[in-house]
Amino acid sequence: MSGLTPREWLGLEATHNPHRWYLPVIPRLSVREIFLFGGAGLAAATTALEETTERPVVWATAQYLDFAKVGETMDLDVHVSVSGRYTTQARVIGRVGDREIITVNAALGRRELDLTETWPTPPDVRSPDACRPRGYDYDQDSLGKHLDQRFAPTTGKKLGGPTGHGPGRLCVWTKPPDGVGNSAATLAVFGDFVPMGISNVASQPVGSNSLDNTLRIIDVRPSEWYLLDIEAGGIANGFGHGQLRIWDDQGNLQAIASQSVVVRDRLKR
Amino acid sequence: MSGLTPREWLGLEATHNPHRWYLPVIPRLSVREIFLFGGAGLAAATTALEETTERPVVWATAQYLDFAKVGETMDLDVHVSVSGRYTTQARVIGRVGDREIITVNAALGRRELDLTETWPTPPDVRSPDACRPRGYDYDQDSLGKHLDQRFAPTTGKKLGGPTGHGPGRLCVWTKPPDGVGNSAATLAVFGDFVPMGISNVASQPVGSNSLDNTLRIIDVRPSEWYLLDIEAGGIANGFGHGQLRIWDDQGNLQAIASQSVVVRDRLKR
Repeated sequence: MSGLTPREWLGLEATHNPHRWYLPVIPRLSVREIFLFGGAGLAAATTALEETTERPVVWATAQYLDFAKVGETMDLDVHVSVSGRYTTQARVIGRVGDREIITVNAALGRRELDLTETWPTPPDVRSPDACRPRGYDYDQDSLGKHLDQRFAPTTGKKLGGPTGHGPGRLCVWTKPPDGVGNSAATLAVFGDFVPMGISNVASQPVGSNSLDNTLRIIDVRPSEWYLLDIEAGGIANGFGHGQLRIWDDQGNLQAIASQSVVVRDRLKR
Repeated sequence: MSGLTPREWLGLEATHNPHRWYLPVIPRLSVREIFLFGGAGLAAATTALEETTERPVVWATAQYLDFAKVGETMDLDVHVSVSGRYTTQARVIGRVGDREIITVNAALGRRELDLTETWPTPPDVRSPDACRPRGYDYDQDSLGKHLDQRFAPTTGKKLGGPTGHGPGRLCVWTKPPDGVGNSAATLAVFGDFVPMGISNVASQPVGSNSLDNTLRIIDVRPSEWYLLDIEAGGIANGFGHGQLRIWDDQGNLQAIASQSVVVRDRLKR
């Protein structure tokens, strides 16, 4: 089931320099064959970071500065700022030519601490089999089309919002592409769905583009489905903000992502 | 009440170069007169960003790389990556000598969008007058001593956790230092209290140090008190993660912060 490594899934290429990688921007990583899906950019960066430092990502934030277009190739340079006994702090700059596309700051490592606990509780949702798959109204290839995504209505009391989990909340079952297992890369892609939440809970039709993609990893378990538990925070001054918890299908918290986005009025454009 | 500008509060100094600032690390911005309080570092960066670009901060993430000690001076260099019609994307590097202390990535701006909404609801809490002030068991000056902080017990059903808001949650009324009003700088300092939440909800004594401080600003209203509504997410592999919503005293959501931290066993040190 998880036959592809993150490098194989993304098509991330190594070079003679272990700190230097490159990513051809291909249709299956794109938004509608136009530009690189932001979460795939963070996924390439976390993969490069983990391979270069040989440590797992704990936290990573991507700042999205420009679009990398399909057919272009993004260079990724890993710079290690601090390499401690247990923790590495690093950054990745992604460029096409001399155009900066993405800057990622991150911490990686494992420390000895005899304490593991999580506090949030997973939402009550119908099983994926009982939920309707997301449809697409266009023909182009797109990263989203390689996922199976299904709005996941509550099985509990209906509290409002599109899946009944309360105002501002949206729960979406998501299955990784065929052959792709769980990894920081998979969680990075899943973490870039705050805009989906904002579009579905806003009181008028809006679209949005990510300014950043922040990922905090707690666990990386294999699972057939993952639940994206999106909590929109607010929209003000033309920008939106939200959080997204990622659960495995046994209710184990895998990661907490958050994003700020540019919000556009869909009716005006 | 808000007689001090953020620059005056922090003691942030301008130079001949509008992109270059410096911050003497003074005891009132410190942790126990030893090193710069992380949130004060982000506050200096957001202040420099807002003054240099003349736009308000929407999102900012600080990566903490090293400590700036009391008596040292931190240089802050503002680099504008993208300057659009409504949105600026920028970064700030903070250094003492050639030692990098902090890297901040940020977006700033205001866009025309006729839609303002927030979804989370403020927690039920006792008024600040009915809550006990936080005490300190040391004599040194410290940023925290210039705040008035009070654990804010729920007035609703007790759901567990130190203030009754549920497992992993902690609500803390916080009053800015005398003369300091609301600003991105104030919210940046408030956003660096996820470690307080984690220490108070963990099932054994732990301390923690911030790896990052991520701030998403929705509103910047004047208020006598602000409520820090902290939600610890989890602890795993020696790292912790959490979110912190900042409310004004009328229940308006001001900002959503989040952090990942290094967690230490207090008994083992």
